[in-house]
Amino acid sequence: MKTANGINLTMLCDFYELTMGNGYFLSDRRDMISYFDVFFRNIPDGGGFAVAAGLEQIVDYVQNLHFDDDDIAYLRSRGIFDEGFLEYLKNFRFHGDIWAIPEGTPIFPGEPVITVRAPAIEAQLLETYMLLEFNHQSLIATKANRICRAAEGRTVLEFGSRRAQGIAGAVTGARAAYIGGCAGTACTVSDQIYGVPAAGTMAHSWVQMFDSELEAFEHYCRTYPNNAVLLVDTYDSMRSGVPNAIRAFNSILKPLGITKCGIRLDSGDMAYLTKKARKMLDEAGWTECKITVSNSLDERLIRDLIRQGARIDSFGVGERLITSKSDPVFGGVYKLCAVEKEDGTRIPKIKISENVGKITNPDFKKLYRFYDRETGKAEADYICLREEIVEDSQPLTICDPMARWKRKTMENYTAVELQVPVFRDGVLVYKLPTLPEIKAYCAAQIDTLWPEVMRFDNPHQYYVDLSEKLMVMKDEMLLSSGRRKETAV
Amino acid sequence: MKTANGINLTMLCDFYELTMGNGYFLSDRRDMISYFDVFFRNIPDGGGFAVAAGLEQIVDYVQNLHFDDDDIAYLRSRGIFDEGFLEYLKNFRFHGDIWAIPEGTPIFPGEPVITVRAPAIEAQLLETYMLLEFNHQSLIATKANRICRAAEGRTVLEFGSRRAQGIAGAVTGARAAYIGGCAGTACTVSDQIYGVPAAGTMAHSWVQMFDSELEAFEHYCRTYPNNAVLLVDTYDSMRSGVPNAIRAFNSILKPLGITKCGIRLDSGDMAYLTKKARKMLDEAGWTECKITVSNSLDERLIRDLIRQGARIDSFGVGERLITSKSDPVFGGVYKLCAVEKEDGTRIPKIKISENVGKITNPDFKKLYRFYDRETGKAEADYICLREEIVEDSQPLTICDPMARWKRKTMENYTAVELQVPVFRDGVLVYKLPTLPEIKAYCAAQIDTLWPEVMRFDNPHQYYVDLSEKLMVMKDEMLLSSGRRKETAV
Repeated sequence: MKTANGINLTMLCDFYELTMGNGYFLSDRRDMISYFDVFFRNIPDGGGFAVAAGLEQIVDYVQNLHFDDDDIAYLRSRGIFDEGFLEYLKNFRFHGDIWAIPEGTPIFPGEPVITVRAPAIEAQLLETYMLLEFNHQSLIATKANRICRAAEGRTVLEFGSRRAQGIAGAVTGARAAYIGGCAGTACTVSDQIYGVPAAGTMAHSWVQMFDSELEAFEHYCRTYPNNAVLLVDTYDSMRSGVPNAIRAFNSILKPLGITKCGIRLDSGDMAYLTKKARKMLDEAGWTECKITVSNSLDERLIRDLIRQGARIDSFGVGERLITSKSDPVFGGVYKLCAVEKEDGTRIPKIKISENVGKITNPDFKKLYRFYDRETGKAEADYICLREEIVEDSQPLTICDPMARWKRKTMENYTAVELQVPVFRDGVLVYKLPTLPEIKAYCAAQIDTLWPEVMRFDNPHQYYVDLSEKLMVMKDEMLLSSGRRKETAV
Repeated sequence: MKTANGINLTMLCDFYELTMGNGYFLSDRRDMISYFDVFFRNIPDGGGFAVAAGLEQIVDYVQNLHFDDDDIAYLRSRGIFDEGFLEYLKNFRFHGDIWAIPEGTPIFPGEPVITVRAPAIEAQLLETYMLLEFNHQSLIATKANRICRAAEGRTVLEFGSRRAQGIAGAVTGARAAYIGGCAGTACTVSDQIYGVPAAGTMAHSWVQMFDSELEAFEHYCRTYPNNAVLLVDTYDSMRSGVPNAIRAFNSILKPLGITKCGIRLDSGDMAYLTKKARKMLDEAGWTECKITVSNSLDERLIRDLIRQGARIDSFGVGERLITSKSDPVFGGVYKLCAVEKEDGTRIPKIKISENVGKITNPDFKKLYRFYDRETGKAEADYICLREEIVEDSQPLTICDPMARWKRKTMENYTAVELQVPVFRDGVLVYKLPTLPEIKAYCAAQIDTLWPEVMRFDNPHQYYVDLSEKLMVMKDEMLLSSGRRKETAV
């Protein structure tokens, strides 16, 4: 095996998940039911919200969890695993429960996006791949959404495969970009396997391969009269590219009665060139010719170009989207929040840190989003213990856990639980939506956010509050840990 | 298919490669022999050199190029491809030649790293995947090397899978990091398939899973007495973690006569805490206990920690390495540089751009590296036409193409050709080195660079010069293109 393609994804785990698994196996923790939350701490690019993505691939992964004979043989060769554990791995599968926020949902720091309840070894093993997929796709969906919002309704195409960080960087990256709002991708296989519409016409090499630009354009128009998008910047966009494009449209498309066509600009000043090209095209009667631009675009340049009156119908966005170049890490983590005693009693767990922001929310939790009944807008999210029930017919006073003097009373609101059951006793109980459904749901959910939350810089910080009970539990756990430390010295 | 795993990588192409392929098929360009170069323009992080990586995966890809029936069916469903072209794809394989710079070699902007000579359709199709793999792995190998140089001989482990951009972001990312100098990875499957040593011991959840930190540590020491690396920051590193680690070492390892062990710190001030921990461990007699740290490390923080006297034996580096966070794009491009007429005459091709740095070097080329015979140091690289031969027994005057008044005469030097033949008429003619060989070769080659080139910031710009003949050809092509434009207006 030379490429990271066709691997057993179960083996895409951090090695410590296996050393711990073997350790749990050899202790009385083997079947201890444990609860883990996936959550994140910071929104990329300092934005006001992120877009959850990757659940479909996580479901696929969980359903296929298994160790092949050669995986067991590899593990045996490491010389540190108990034979009983290796035997146990032969029949390994997932038996637990998973709840998750559906793909396409706007999410905020500190929220339990995915919650796993499973025997310790199983729950621990999911960590790496689950985070990898959630982090990667949420990163790209979030970035794509910023870029699409900057384009203000114009088409955005994902063109970044060649600069992606590995195979899935391109392939599932295109899927995530589509969820976030892109209309399509250049990546053929993402169309084939996910149905992300793939598009593309020509590279500079097409133009160079012919004896003249005009010959290259005419040949292309003859081959694809219904999708003739000509790349006009191989030699000189204004003096050669656009004039030759117009000649080719006139000689090939016009006799066919075709009025729809396009040009693409991949270099130079996009504001100046597109205005000039638009004028040339219009004057030649090609008013329906669309102008696509590509070249180091991102949400800021797109916004600036539009502000400067650039005449652009469609943006091809590459490396800055597919790697989320300005902030290429989505920092989702996977933290233990509770274990069950043999009698089923739940014991909440907390991770304490000198960094206050790294302290976790303990116990098995539930997440609500409160929408204003009148405006339909999302007003706040609310994390409570799993057993707590919010009656949205009643007013509810919520408070910011980091600034407890800030209080707000919710009235006339709808409370919607955000996590849905995905696996129950290892069985998939969630009907995965189609990709167009996810995309539409994402757009609709983002529409429920106030514009203040959508600002690119210094957005309004959306409220994510903790229930009174959860806050009291957390406070007590922090206090008692402090007392333990006092006595430990 | 839900995950980007087990896909036919041939379909990981930009859609325009297929529309162009179909277009070439329907023109007289179908079998036109064309030459493409892979090269890059900027070194990530403003460094002085990059490390080439990814060739093994590219070889694997080229050897497996093919279209399955379902690929053909998908393409047919798009409704724009000629049936003759689809028929042609059924028996598609690569028939061309490929030359490449071996993995692990330091490379510089503008150099032909990979050169492809093949019929137009075949050569064009390679673009996306070849760039993707080269860009991704070179990016990570280059970043890893920066980080490892900062660590000045201390161990650096790649810990970033969970934050990687997709499956291969983690899996081949770990391979590239190993080439660049990392001693190992946390990623199990990268060990299994590439032999990158995988390591790891415990997460915070292990500690939390037990009733006390001491119990967790003791159980771990009993299970892995020969590799007991204890994570000490779950509750309080200095008041609880390190004291409990010492207790566990004393009670479990000491009776076994084991003196080798370790602790890991994942939060807090690494300079302060490691010095304090070192003192506590030494005073308790655990002088052989190694200290590993992890937490948002990169080359700058590592260098600062070492400068401040932090007592660190090993660094676990995550997201900032596996995504090359500070500069996450390697901008390799794939550009046509020549075509052959039917009689075999080569016609050089150039891509002109308003941006001078984006103008390509025309024609089929060769790349030499000149080493000083006395010091063994690399002095300059030299790009010439393929037919030119450098006799390193003779002095050679080279000049900087961007600053032609800068001249240098090479004497007492060895000229080494950097590209090696990889495919000949579609057949692999290159013996792929093993991963440890690549890693060792990389370290040895970097040792030939002057320290000035290795500076993190504002390094000496290594000389990459063009031969007189190549420069004259390029000048003439630019001039004649300028003339064409004059007449085009």
